[in-house]
Amino acid sequence: MINKLVARIKKTGAPIVVGLDPMLSYIPQYIQDKAFKEYGETLEGAAEAIWQFNKEIVDKTHDLIPAVKPQIAMYEQFGVPGVAAFRKTVDYCKSKDLVVIGDIKRGDIGSTSEAYAAGHLGKVTVGGKEYIPFGEDFATVNPYLGSDGVNPFIKVCREEKKGIFVLVKTSNPSSGEFQDREIDGRPLYELVGEKVAEWGADCMGDEYSYVGAVVGATYPEMGKILRRIMPKAYILVPGYGAQGGRGKDLVHFFNEDGLGAIVNSSRGIIAAYRQEAYSKYGEKNFGDASRAAVEDMIDDISGALEGR
Amino acid sequence: MINKLVARIKKTGAPIVVGLDPMLSYIPQYIQDKAFKEYGETLEGAAEAIWQFNKEIVDKTHDLIPAVKPQIAMYEQFGVPGVAAFRKTVDYCKSKDLVVIGDIKRGDIGSTSEAYAAGHLGKVTVGGKEYIPFGEDFATVNPYLGSDGVNPFIKVCREEKKGIFVLVKTSNPSSGEFQDREIDGRPLYELVGEKVAEWGADCMGDEYSYVGAVVGATYPEMGKILRRIMPKAYILVPGYGAQGGRGKDLVHFFNEDGLGAIVNSSRGIIAAYRQEAYSKYGEKNFGDASRAAVEDMIDDISGALEGR
Repeated sequence: MINKLVARIKKTGAPIVVGLDPMLSYIPQYIQDKAFKEYGETLEGAAEAIWQFNKEIVDKTHDLIPAVKPQIAMYEQFGVPGVAAFRKTVDYCKSKDLVVIGDIKRGDIGSTSEAYAAGHLGKVTVGGKEYIPFGEDFATVNPYLGSDGVNPFIKVCREEKKGIFVLVKTSNPSSGEFQDREIDGRPLYELVGEKVAEWGADCMGDEYSYVGAVVGATYPEMGKILRRIMPKAYILVPGYGAQGGRGKDLVHFFNEDGLGAIVNSSRGIIAAYRQEAYSKYGEKNFGDASRAAVEDMIDDISGALEGR
Repeated sequence: MINKLVARIKKTGAPIVVGLDPMLSYIPQYIQDKAFKEYGETLEGAAEAIWQFNKEIVDKTHDLIPAVKPQIAMYEQFGVPGVAAFRKTVDYCKSKDLVVIGDIKRGDIGSTSEAYAAGHLGKVTVGGKEYIPFGEDFATVNPYLGSDGVNPFIKVCREEKKGIFVLVKTSNPSSGEFQDREIDGRPLYELVGEKVAEWGADCMGDEYSYVGAVVGATYPEMGKILRRIMPKAYILVPGYGAQGGRGKDLVHFFNEDGLGAIVNSSRGIIAAYRQEAYSKYGEKNFGDASRAAVEDMIDDISGALEGR
């Protein structure tokens, strides 16, 4: 799957991923109204609104982008119907040949991580039959429990040709509370980065490993160091746009070949129609606003990469 | 909810929690067969088997115990129907007046943790209506992202009178890879423990804080230190039984008042009928085997606490 991701990035020229994190407040009222008319003001109604919103954004952007990253929390908050909308979104994106990165940030002790890995990246057996429960292509994984928590994901990745992105340095303001603490003179995130390189060494696709890392756009200097520590890891970079990251901050997340990183934007793309810059599209054409925002993001990042 | 947990522990004399982590391999064949007959060898069939298995264990043990801890990974692995069985299990346990600890180990950047907190401990608004998506009483939370990732859970706990257990020192063999690394001469888990005490200071129930901690039974010496660092935090202790912890190892997780810790056993209780010690019950009476295992666990821990 890392090979597919790299191939799609090369084909589209867009090292970006659209974060499908649909807060209800982002969804145009007419879509909510239609969903509520059919399903009532219920969890099912919210799930339907999310799904219709996602579908339009995917329809309007899929040819420009290599991948999407649905954040499962935004679905889980609407209970079982929300989780069903997550699954439906994953399926739809795969039908459009997009690489799907499940932003699930799971991680637990061995047998429990096995269950998460099977559920999100692999298969489960029921009686004599096999099922694909959620079927993402990649998942994000929390490293706090160490190798025991990560290895079951790697095992499933190897079997199913999937991949993971391990949290190394997250984009949020308080990420330094633990991640930046110094151990033998070096911050924890560097040690986690070294582990990612170690875990990934036996997990190579053609050019890159299918064990990648999450490093926030909001910490470009740390990205520069982590890029060197994990030369073969793809870096998933959240925090672009709404969280403050800009193309010029991101060049050091990439290798000299222009590969090695994929930058996520969620709100900046999916709620573009609410921004001044894209207001001309109006609520009805929110998908076109998202497309324009994707084009601008590609230009921003490509320009920064060419200009370095 | 921390007051309810403490009250139920006092009433039952059982500082234990039953981990409802139903692997299909634990579920007696006759229950699987019945479920598959009705729903086929499908994810729905697996979910039904899980639910029937849980129900029997809850029916046979609820009067002896204060709380249950369903591990959501074991449900998530069966996709949307599995997640529905998780919700059904939570509801049923609450109808039996059990405190429900959702072992979800979530944790993300602020707005995303808000969504998880609303989904698992709080409410969501759809149009003009409010819903309780999953409705656990407590949730386990991963601290790797720092305060930003934890505070949204605390906010919901305050509003809804719920609680959390933050991962401090996990029970698995590799937990030391990052958690034991020394920062200014002290292991990371102690710094996380200090943060738990800090987060919990403004979140007091009558005797204990509703910001608790997870510390593995497999690391009793560390539990002793963490008990002192977080005197008002309830400690959720996994790793008893199948993972190797025993009553005598656990006394230092408790305060002098005999409170302050709650010990989880999953496999050791729910799959008791498969152990030599409880084999006389047979597959058909697996719920009675679980009840006997609960009684033995209470004796083991009470005995250790009395004997100290």
